[in-house]
Amino acid sequence: MATTMLNARWSGEALDFIGTDTKGNNVPMGGDAPSPGQMLLIALAGCTGMDIVSILKKKRVEISEVEVRVIAQQPDQYPKPYNPIEVEYIVRGKSVDPAAVARAIELSKEKYCIVSQTLQLAVEMTSSFAIEEK
Amino acid sequence: MATTMLNARWSGEALDFIGTDTKGNNVPMGGDAPSPGQMLLIALAGCTGMDIVSILKKKRVEISEVEVRVIAQQPDQYPKPYNPIEVEYIVRGKSVDPAAVARAIELSKEKYCIVSQTLQLAVEMTSSFAIEEK
Repeated sequence: MATTMLNARWSGEALDFIGTDTKGNNVPMGGDAPSPGQMLLIALAGCTGMDIVSILKKKRVEISEVEVRVIAQQPDQYPKPYNPIEVEYIVRGKSVDPAAVARAIELSKEKYCIVSQTLQLAVEMTSSFAIEEK
Repeated sequence: MATTMLNARWSGEALDFIGTDTKGNNVPMGGDAPSPGQMLLIALAGCTGMDIVSILKKKRVEISEVEVRVIAQQPDQYPKPYNPIEVEYIVRGKSVDPAAVARAIELSKEKYCIVSQTLQLAVEMTSSFAIEEK
């Protein structure tokens, strides 16, 4: 097992929190900064997106842009967990093979994406993709 | 149900992704920026921390600082979901009532914290707190 320890703290009047990762990066939340809930969704998009880029590049697929859209539903009243969460991938490049994209999405979900892995036992997650020639 | 839609995208050589929240804030991930996995943990810390501040302030508890530490375990090999996750609260202030802190933590976990609510069906989460006179 590997252990990650980090923190976030508040020391003022407003509700703003500042988190810090293990590299020392400060991440403001609340107020004008992203809400923690949206940070969770952004983390999911970035996590699986990086996998797609990494896997497709290893397969020498000619990609120029990858966009990951996350659409999350939550109840109007508390408690408000996100569920379900839909992930849409838009892959732009030259003659991108749909089978390679589908396989990369599957590998991200089933193996590599830490955020998906952490969420998916609790959250109904669906995905779809589009390929655009560029 | 309420819907949140946001995205993250890659358009270069490195594995860096940039996420954008619904306010238009850009959130870089990967490379020198926080990893998406750590962003998930930071979001959890900020989310529950804001609840604690908000609830204690409403109860007129005299707090000056709240720090939330998150300690997450994950396997050494993929897939690497975070589980379990331990949350430690350090509340600093004047004559802070431990019962008020315990109740605030409970309310955050059971009702208000969207990130905890999303994670807790899948992840074993424990919490503890310390109060420091300041």
